[in-house]
Amino acid sequence: MIKAYAAQEAGGTLKPFEYDPGALGAEEVEIAVDYCGICHSDLNMLNNDWGITTFPFVPGHEVAGRIIQIGDRVDTLTMGDKVGLGWHSGYCKSCTSCLSNDENMCTSPEETIVGRHGGFADKVRARAESVFPLPEELDIESAGPLFCAGITVFNPLIQYDIKPSDSIAVIGIGGLGHIALQFLRAWGCEVTAFTSSEMKRAEALSLGAHHVVSSRDEAEIMTKKGCFDMVISTVNVTLNWNLFLKTLKPKGRLHFVGAALEPLNINAFSLITGQASISGSSVGSPGTIATMLEFASQHAIKPVVQKFKFDQANEAIAHLASGKANYRVVLER
Amino acid sequence: MIKAYAAQEAGGTLKPFEYDPGALGAEEVEIAVDYCGICHSDLNMLNNDWGITTFPFVPGHEVAGRIIQIGDRVDTLTMGDKVGLGWHSGYCKSCTSCLSNDENMCTSPEETIVGRHGGFADKVRARAESVFPLPEELDIESAGPLFCAGITVFNPLIQYDIKPSDSIAVIGIGGLGHIALQFLRAWGCEVTAFTSSEMKRAEALSLGAHHVVSSRDEAEIMTKKGCFDMVISTVNVTLNWNLFLKTLKPKGRLHFVGAALEPLNINAFSLITGQASISGSSVGSPGTIATMLEFASQHAIKPVVQKFKFDQANEAIAHLASGKANYRVVLER
Repeated sequence: MIKAYAAQEAGGTLKPFEYDPGALGAEEVEIAVDYCGICHSDLNMLNNDWGITTFPFVPGHEVAGRIIQIGDRVDTLTMGDKVGLGWHSGYCKSCTSCLSNDENMCTSPEETIVGRHGGFADKVRARAESVFPLPEELDIESAGPLFCAGITVFNPLIQYDIKPSDSIAVIGIGGLGHIALQFLRAWGCEVTAFTSSEMKRAEALSLGAHHVVSSRDEAEIMTKKGCFDMVISTVNVTLNWNLFLKTLKPKGRLHFVGAALEPLNINAFSLITGQASISGSSVGSPGTIATMLEFASQHAIKPVVQKFKFDQANEAIAHLASGKANYRVVLER
Repeated sequence: MIKAYAAQEAGGTLKPFEYDPGALGAEEVEIAVDYCGICHSDLNMLNNDWGITTFPFVPGHEVAGRIIQIGDRVDTLTMGDKVGLGWHSGYCKSCTSCLSNDENMCTSPEETIVGRHGGFADKVRARAESVFPLPEELDIESAGPLFCAGITVFNPLIQYDIKPSDSIAVIGIGGLGHIALQFLRAWGCEVTAFTSSEMKRAEALSLGAHHVVSSRDEAEIMTKKGCFDMVISTVNVTLNWNLFLKTLKPKGRLHFVGAALEPLNINAFSLITGQASISGSSVGSPGTIATMLEFASQHAIKPVVQKFKFDQANEAIAHLASGKANYRVVLER
């Protein structure tokens, strides 16, 4: 039996919940969960915001743990390996996206907390191709958030061929943004943080930003006119996007890894005159996750986490929902 | 003296107008204008829609003609060369865009009809780097529109590395779209035309489209769900852009070379889930123009034009403004 924490209904309290996972699939592994991060999408799923949650619902898709069982056809992982697991827990391996090494856009993936039970548990299972050995030097306590928040902000660097000579801005210095600053600084870029919080200015600098600019003061934003090759927005509020388009260099990109439900009221002419792009992405492929883990290990990049015990899962969720998390919440055994 | 046709005020009638161009600049050439296309942006400038027009105003930035005078420092063109001239009539050659071979995004370019007199004239001048010899096989009567409409729809193929294996759609089969279909078919792509005009279905097929789909019938649009690597919109009306985003493959691009003034009400989540991009562009660099001319010549691509005499310039403009041009209007001597 797997001992988990589950909600029985949308917005419900998490309570101890046991389930029988059945026989291990030949291409699966079982992970003993040592740490599990909490992501905003765990909250969205808990509240059934997207209408796709099945109950009982066990959250958790930022897992760090150890391999304790291995399926018959798995030869890439070994008992006791320290590993991580993120949003995806398997890929079809046959659709065009999978065949193009874009497995994160698989048309029929397994998703760790969609239609199956996640990492708020003593054990969790996943197909081997979605489980990644942690580099020896990587801090295991903060590794979980790399598998969702981390890969989400790392992926654009790979997808859009970001170079160390590029000037990149990050809007929002929270769970995603504070990792983005670290990656970008280590990547060699000139890094600017846009934040609405005066209190985060010093922290943004310590996390890797060269410059910090208000995300709300239009005059201050315009001091960065024509400055950036890419602006990555991590926030889920609506800002003056046409103003941020003006901060792009010719051929620049405004990229969304977070978003509000309100539409983006973009002026097409501002795209045409600067040959600008607007885009979005989520998580990354297995190849990109492996690259990210090596890069994070090499550059000692780690999410800043606040830890709660697994039996404090409800308090941990409330803390995240309050918007006061600095910066990422992780459950520990 | 140069004998031109000019408007004296916004929206005014074009009347004969002579001006003295002064001494030829050392880096300039003078072109005897044999043909000059009319572009929607000539109308916008004539009406001072963008607030940047100076009067008297001489339209015309789709010039085909012959070199009749050469500046002292010009060694790339010869007397009598058949040439073309488009939106730009010179570049600063020193800004980052110019130094990066993106001269069309030069921060201080010369523009053929902005603050100077254009091609509705017997002669027009331009800096040599913006004047292009026409390949021998290229049809000179229809060459002018390649220098604005043509390069505008050709440029995205180069900018976004379009491959013959890509499936590309064009929205709007008019002055721009009818050239886009020809380029894309010759490029080797699977080509789909979206049009609001039932009458244009057969023409779109003859111009190179493999498939023709209504741009207004939402059910018909959705038969193309997940089909396209890129959708190029040439229209200046607002369509259901979120619906067109659904016609993109993963990592697809919705690209605007025309636009309405209304904002694009884009749902950011539809960008994030498909890693889609939205972008825009105008004209192209000298290198891309030269590539386009060779490609058009090689594949016998030519704008479909309706010709008027220069002294019928007002009728020609009225015909274009009526929306009935099939497909591009050209003045001839």
